[in-house]
Amino acid sequence: MANTLKRRLFIIIFGTDTPAGRAFDIALLIAILISIFAVMLESVESLEEKFGHIFRIVEWVLTGAFTLEYLTRVYVTDRKSQYIFSFYGLIDLLSLLPTYLSLIFTGTQYLLIIRALRLLRVFRILKLGRYVGEGEQLMRALRSSRHKITVFMGTVITLVVIMGTVMYLVEGGENGFTSIPKSIYWAIVTLTTVGYGDIAPQTVLGQSIASFVMILGYAIIAVPTGIVTVALGKEKDKQALLACSNCQETGHAEDAIHCKFCGEKLLHE
Amino acid sequence: MANTLKRRLFIIIFGTDTPAGRAFDIALLIAILISIFAVMLESVESLEEKFGHIFRIVEWVLTGAFTLEYLTRVYVTDRKSQYIFSFYGLIDLLSLLPTYLSLIFTGTQYLLIIRALRLLRVFRILKLGRYVGEGEQLMRALRSSRHKITVFMGTVITLVVIMGTVMYLVEGGENGFTSIPKSIYWAIVTLTTVGYGDIAPQTVLGQSIASFVMILGYAIIAVPTGIVTVALGKEKDKQALLACSNCQETGHAEDAIHCKFCGEKLLHE
Amino acid sequence: MANTLKRRLFIIIFGTDTPAGRAFDIALLIAILISIFAVMLESVESLEEKFGHIFRIVEWVLTGAFTLEYLTRVYVTDRKSQYIFSFYGLIDLLSLLPTYLSLIFTGTQYLLIIRALRLLRVFRILKLGRYVGEGEQLMRALRSSRHKITVFMGTVITLVVIMGTVMYLVEGGENGFTSIPKSIYWAIVTLTTVGYGDIAPQTVLGQSIASFVMILGYAIIAVPTGIVTVALGKEKDKQALLACSNCQETGHAEDAIHCKFCGEKLLHE
Amino acid sequence: MANTLKRRLFIIIFGTDTPAGRAFDIALLIAILISIFAVMLESVESLEEKFGHIFRIVEWVLTGAFTLEYLTRVYVTDRKSQYIFSFYGLIDLLSLLPTYLSLIFTGTQYLLIIRALRLLRVFRILKLGRYVGEGEQLMRALRSSRHKITVFMGTVITLVVIMGTVMYLVEGGENGFTSIPKSIYWAIVTLTTVGYGDIAPQTVLGQSIASFVMILGYAIIAVPTGIVTVALGKEKDKQALLACSNCQETGHAEDAIHCKFCGEKLLHE
Repeated sequence: MANTLKRRLFIIIFGTDTPAGRAFDIALLIAILISIFAVMLESVESLEEKFGHIFRIVEWVLTGAFTLEYLTRVYVTDRKSQYIFSFYGLIDLLSLLPTYLSLIFTGTQYLLIIRALRLLRVFRILKLGRYVGEGEQLMRALRSSRHKITVFMGTVITLVVIMGTVMYLVEGGENGFTSIPKSIYWAIVTLTTVGYGDIAPQTVLGQSIASFVMILGYAIIAVPTGIVTVALGKEKDKQALLACSNCQETGHAEDAIHCKFCGEKLLHE
Repeated sequence: MANTLKRRLFIIIFGTDTPAGRAFDIALLIAILISIFAVMLESVESLEEKFGHIFRIVEWVLTGAFTLEYLTRVYVTDRKSQYIFSFYGLIDLLSLLPTYLSLIFTGTQYLLIIRALRLLRVFRILKLGRYVGEGEQLMRALRSSRHKITVFMGTVITLVVIMGTVMYLVEGGENGFTSIPKSIYWAIVTLTTVGYGDIAPQTVLGQSIASFVMILGYAIIAVPTGIVTVALGKEKDKQALLACSNCQETGHAEDAIHCKFCGEKLLHE
Repeated sequence: MANTLKRRLFIIIFGTDTPAGRAFDIALLIAILISIFAVMLESVESLEEKFGHIFRIVEWVLTGAFTLEYLTRVYVTDRKSQYIFSFYGLIDLLSLLPTYLSLIFTGTQYLLIIRALRLLRVFRILKLGRYVGEGEQLMRALRSSRHKITVFMGTVITLVVIMGTVMYLVEGGENGFTSIPKSIYWAIVTLTTVGYGDIAPQTVLGQSIASFVMILGYAIIAVPTGIVTVALGKEKDKQALLACSNCQETGHAEDAIHCKFCGEKLLHE
Repeated sequence: MANTLKRRLFIIIFGTDTPAGRAFDIALLIAILISIFAVMLESVESLEEKFGHIFRIVEWVLTGAFTLEYLTRVYVTDRKSQYIFSFYGLIDLLSLLPTYLSLIFTGTQYLLIIRALRLLRVFRILKLGRYVGEGEQLMRALRSSRHKITVFMGTVITLVVIMGTVMYLVEGGENGFTSIPKSIYWAIVTLTTVGYGDIAPQTVLGQSIASFVMILGYAIIAVPTGIVTVALGKEKDKQALLACSNCQETGHAEDAIHCKFCGEKLLHE
């Protein structure tokens, strides 16, 4: 009988096809969102002063719910260690720990630890990953262009280190380029076209080099874009280039089952 | 006879093929543009002081014209409720209401409502949508990549929430990161490479994390670009991959009617 | 004999194949670059004070040379009016006029006109266009996606007008959003991810809307990129999709003359 | 016997397949990274004061190691001058020189030279290039679109010169546009969407032109992206469009050796 309950709970918690499973998913989704909003709003001082006790109640109710969810997930899974050490298993545990740990560190000497623990709860947003499960094609495309992206990143880092050093020499500390790491930070801010403006070149030579860095950054953004686009396009082309085994015709739609020219069944890879 | 007038008005207002229909379209286009410019310039204090009365006259003349247009559209349409509750029907109504409503709220206690009503008129720009009607291929491409864009957006929001929280912990209120929502705002400003500079990291650790966020933002912009490019390319490829039913040859131009190799008529999907 | 001189001059000035023609081209290129640098450096006050008289001499020598060039071009062309009213004919004339006109307006009351005339000379950079003549494939790709780019631009302008108006209402004059045109300017600065930071939202609601605008701007940049990429790709595909008339095989290189499978001559469009 | 040692050293230093070769590579990689970090951290004043002597020791130990590496590379290479004047040969030499040269220039009158020499050591990062060797496909794609990128860059520079000059005239020195070069710097900052905000237009006309420049910059970034994407896509397509010599079918995977339709061996270009 326990086994039946276990099975039913498994279907509700891990399944998404039954009404109960779907209701559970939606309830969990809402609980996660409320929890994240509570963490965010708690950090706003004026709100914390007014509604601090409400945040505390919400926090404990949701932590209780998540604890129940975690224990049930462990209970209903057959290979427990596999779930516990899976990505989502660890995320689920990480969502609980901070709140309980904050009971241990209560003295004022642990203020920073408490603050960090409280904010760690924001990682609960990763629990939402369960609702995605669609990014496979994207991930496959990114993984297949892994090598090229590494080369590109290496080039960007080399550029940024050299440009930062040059600017440190050219502009110097009096114009905000007080050290090489800071100058490299400036080079990243500029090359990525973010452009805060907290550090900006003042000398004519510095502005000329900066102009060069900007145009470079503007141009080389084309490279990762090209890499990802081609990789994504290739994923799509696989189907479009699939040829019918009877008439050897290509150009079928992504969801085609039969050849649109002769009706032969398509042999997907 | 009324029926004939109704039909003729219908052709003028909804049609674009007759000279009268085209003249009506151009007149409406100009009226919309004038109306939007009036709303915009009215908000400039120095212009409002000098030309306020002119703006008022323009406003009422154009509102009168739009009212007439709206009533005529309702009159000439056979299935009135269908027009009234269509997108453009609601936009047309929304273009009139604010001006009339401003007659009701005249006391100084309603100042904010009046201001909002006056500005609502800017939505008249949506009336221009009627002149577009070309974006279908674009919209189809975007719609077909809806799923991937959602996944991408979800990833961006997750990144931004986590990065914002981390920066709130690292930098703290004294450097402008006064709360998590504000830190998330900073993360969005940085990841999207906007970079206002109103909030900028000051600590070494903060600047290191910021550099990471910037390079990340610089790199992941490749993803939506890749998605849209591939979707748009597929729209175009449909024609290029269309095969001739006689010689099974592909590569025809978008406007081809006959196969360029054997002359057979092409069977478009 | 005059005819022979005319022909020889024509070959030197308009041609690029003879040594003399090439030498003329290089000399002209250098003259244009010097001229533009002179205009640029003249505007730097400290340099103008020191080297003002040199700039004046360079100016008159180059203007003399450009005048000679212009007159010779008119002389050697047979259909004179066609050259004079061509794009480069007008540019060539526009390169001379400002310097001569500055002789007429010499009083201090014409200071602004003189300044404008002096700066107009910077348009001489357009004379460099003659050396490009490679951008045809690019231009063809952009022209073929003209329609889609217009739709995209219309969408961006609509977004920017509505967002600007909403921010004007939300933030108001005390936070820098003093009028709708200024708020629209802010919306453009934000949507295009430029982000000066001279105007930045201060209220929570304003920052939320701004975040939305930024993510939107970050996402919709994918659209023009996709449009141009697909158009450029199509230009290239024309050759790749060209089929051999004998074996009907595609996939030939851009410069292929014979089919790489059966050796049949390719029939280019 | 010396010959055997020479060969063994060659395999260790230039090879990557043997355990010793791999160990050498990793040791060199770590040495380069430590060296660059030392240069960077040395420039941070507070760290230099505390750990200056450690940086000095690290510096001389690593320079010794790099000298040994350089001399060994020269020794084991047969065609010595070819290595010495190769890109990496020069980089290897450049990594040593600054430290030794700093022994010559020790007086306080050479402070700037010493500083420059010390920073030159950062170019050691280019030694890392040996570990990349993957960017060939990327480089080939960029090289094949060299012409189009030049045209694009020329257009951007022309735009930036004209826009800068116009803004100098419109805004003038009182709003930060003190000279044409500075205005061109602003135009680059704006067109590339960096947007520092150190110079920002103040007049209505100036802000209108700036808006135009921003939207232009937002739109034309699509061009280099399109160019690179198409070039990269073409590199990949070469394989996809490769046709089987037996059944003339295309669409094979990049690593395919046999035709996936009839099993015939593929004839790669």
